[in-house]
Amino acid sequence: MTTQIKKKSQQMRWILPVILSLFAFRVSAQNADSAFIRSIYDEVLTKGECYENLRTLCKTAANRLSGSPQAEKAVQWGKQVMEDTGFDKVWLQEVMVPHWVRSDVEYAKIISPEKELKICALGGSIGTGESGITAEVIEVQSLEEVAELPEEKVKGKIVFYNRPMNPKHTTTFWAYAGAVDQRGMGAIEAAKKGAIAVLVRSMNLRLDDYPHTGAMRYDDAVKKIPAAAVSTNDAEYLSDFLKKQGKASVQLKLNCETLPDVLSHNVIGEIKGSEFPEQIIVVGGHLDAWDKGEGAHDDGSGCVQSIEVLRILKALGYQPKRTIRAVLFMNEENGLRGGKKYAEEAKKKNEFHLAAIESDAGGFTPRGFSIDATDYKVNQILAWKDVLAPYGLREFPVGYSGADIGPLKDSTITLIGYRPDSQRYFDFHHADTDVFEAINKRELELGAASMTALVYLIDKYGIK
Amino acid sequence: MTTQIKKKSQQMRWILPVILSLFAFRVSAQNADSAFIRSIYDEVLTKGECYENLRTLCKTAANRLSGSPQAEKAVQWGKQVMEDTGFDKVWLQEVMVPHWVRSDVEYAKIISPEKELKICALGGSIGTGESGITAEVIEVQSLEEVAELPEEKVKGKIVFYNRPMNPKHTTTFWAYAGAVDQRGMGAIEAAKKGAIAVLVRSMNLRLDDYPHTGAMRYDDAVKKIPAAAVSTNDAEYLSDFLKKQGKASVQLKLNCETLPDVLSHNVIGEIKGSEFPEQIIVVGGHLDAWDKGEGAHDDGSGCVQSIEVLRILKALGYQPKRTIRAVLFMNEENGLRGGKKYAEEAKKKNEFHLAAIESDAGGFTPRGFSIDATDYKVNQILAWKDVLAPYGLREFPVGYSGADIGPLKDSTITLIGYRPDSQRYFDFHHADTDVFEAINKRELELGAASMTALVYLIDKYGIK
Repeated sequence: MTTQIKKKSQQMRWILPVILSLFAFRVSAQNADSAFIRSIYDEVLTKGECYENLRTLCKTAANRLSGSPQAEKAVQWGKQVMEDTGFDKVWLQEVMVPHWVRSDVEYAKIISPEKELKICALGGSIGTGESGITAEVIEVQSLEEVAELPEEKVKGKIVFYNRPMNPKHTTTFWAYAGAVDQRGMGAIEAAKKGAIAVLVRSMNLRLDDYPHTGAMRYDDAVKKIPAAAVSTNDAEYLSDFLKKQGKASVQLKLNCETLPDVLSHNVIGEIKGSEFPEQIIVVGGHLDAWDKGEGAHDDGSGCVQSIEVLRILKALGYQPKRTIRAVLFMNEENGLRGGKKYAEEAKKKNEFHLAAIESDAGGFTPRGFSIDATDYKVNQILAWKDVLAPYGLREFPVGYSGADIGPLKDSTITLIGYRPDSQRYFDFHHADTDVFEAINKRELELGAASMTALVYLIDKYGIK
Repeated sequence: MTTQIKKKSQQMRWILPVILSLFAFRVSAQNADSAFIRSIYDEVLTKGECYENLRTLCKTAANRLSGSPQAEKAVQWGKQVMEDTGFDKVWLQEVMVPHWVRSDVEYAKIISPEKELKICALGGSIGTGESGITAEVIEVQSLEEVAELPEEKVKGKIVFYNRPMNPKHTTTFWAYAGAVDQRGMGAIEAAKKGAIAVLVRSMNLRLDDYPHTGAMRYDDAVKKIPAAAVSTNDAEYLSDFLKKQGKASVQLKLNCETLPDVLSHNVIGEIKGSEFPEQIIVVGGHLDAWDKGEGAHDDGSGCVQSIEVLRILKALGYQPKRTIRAVLFMNEENGLRGGKKYAEEAKKKNEFHLAAIESDAGGFTPRGFSIDATDYKVNQILAWKDVLAPYGLREFPVGYSGADIGPLKDSTITLIGYRPDSQRYFDFHHADTDVFEAINKRELELGAASMTALVYLIDKYGIK
């Protein structure tokens, strides 16, 4: 050993004990966190209330699309559950929402040989009028294909968008992202070429008989035409029919319409922080749901899990340093008015939001959290990986968090999306299959506990 | 920098390029593996055949308990599918199996006020005789509690084991392991104290109306008494009834019986290795299933996934260095005769099994693999973590692999269990709910691809 190194080593002698004691401190903090997080999971797995809360929401307020009487029932349900759970404060935040209504007249068939197609209007679509529309169908795979077609090929026809979600994506949300432009923009692109209606293959990775609704848009500069989703089985049927017969005429009847905006509400409840009450940590989901099924995965789950986070902390006698707030956002599905309103009011009141976690990817088994924040903040969350891993929380991608909390984005907030396993999500999404019975109690509870664990860590350590 | 260090540094000058080139080699090998593994997942997610194979197995050979005509149908199904898939060689391996039969007389009720209980005979149970058994019920929580009870408290009674699976376990198999002694040994312990029958709470984490069967044992030195599972809902009902009424008499009728052993078969198929054909890598599941439901998760999934592994490798034009063998084991559920026979024959023929992977934990979304091998071998598998992680394979516990491959254990083999998510498994396990419709196509396929990816890595690199 050279003298220089020896000298260095003497200078450094005091460091080892310091490092060791810091390490010991870290280990003991980690043990305390592990123990508390274990108690979070124990609480929800033995005395969880989110599953029964979800049952009530689904069974008393199915089809709770913004503006509907059922959405109003859901608002009352949310307020009541928060009050019964003993939050420090519960309130409703007013927000005007769109009011689109489906009618029971939704019908499509191939004319000859006659074959009914399982369809439903896309959300926001205009109706076809009493007598419906009958026209030849032209199948396309993309918006781009329509844009390139000569007008005479499209004019007066029903454009049938049939590009399937790409099954190769192991995260199904990427498959959705890669196909949903047909649903969102299909009517605009088709109308530009003179089409009189569109049929869109349902956003569903499996083959079944359920049409999946969802939002579609119009452009004020382009003629509005009716738009419907067709079940994946019938999309396959219609496509085969076109291949074999060369052409197909389809009759389409939709009686849906858009009514004037309606007053509705975000439902908000909180536990006040003891040390830094001005720092707010939001957990949320959206209370509205499409008017198919019962909105169990989308997004009743996120609502009951968010309420459960606060219930668990209370049940364990945990006194948060920061204010923990559950928000049930209205109108995620067709307007995002609730999310926008919440952010607007927060800004007006000069509220400081430290972090927001949204659960809007279904009540499935935990995989992790996506994080939308600076690298410096992301790394603080990644430092908690070890205490979260035993619960299946091992994936922490950087990126998209959630639609409703998106408007809160600024340079300081950490936005987080709860990420459960995604394989089954699109079996249920916006369809009659999204019912309470499609929920596994334990998976729902594990999700609530996962969100609680992260809220606990953020509350305890903060995010700098 | 001191002279000494400078000298050292000169000596070391050649090392950097070597390290870099080794690193580059490793990165390029890893890239090649990543690309091939991606193609495995692409193949199964777009052209997978395991889901349709499972449909055929479930719909043509439900209730395929060892010794039954349905089990024989399943054997023929397995041979046919392997042949159709173009394996190099397919054969049946003879094995004598137990033959227990349930009758349609399975009935239990509380006498007064009358209330029918949803029950089913446990596998292997004797019958009650034509007139059935009527006796008072005594509720217990464990084998130990029975062992400590005075004989006069138990004699002539029906012992009702009602300890629930512990919901706190995040891996449900631990909850099962902690409760299943009641089912396996309950009749023996109760009979020692003079009980005349046992009712066992179903091994099910949720509350529902389905009794779950499963193996139970007798001891030749102890009187055999009938044993039945009761649904979790009715277990709760009976327990409440006892609390409220102080006592309950239950009538139980079971007409099941054990017939003489029957000749059955393991179904085996393989692709011959090109370089080391004498080194065998087994993938397997068990072909028999309980006579409730269709054995979709337990273990039709493992069977079709094992066949799919070989199909995928063939479809991708991959020529394995080692022999890849799919084995559909007979009689896992009530005897393990197939697993034992396979190991016995392997020993007789002096076959060298490098590794064996069993899928018998359901057709759910991938989580990882459990590994039963020396630390040195385990570490070789852990070195592949990075190329497996993108597919949700992030958990690699050391321990139990699978029942059927267990008898192959020796000092050299690496035994591996495919570990999907476990939350929903016991909703279906050994019950009428375990039907084809309980399978999500993508989850099943991802499992098959995960097994294929690991087989590919083991085949390519070996395990030393």
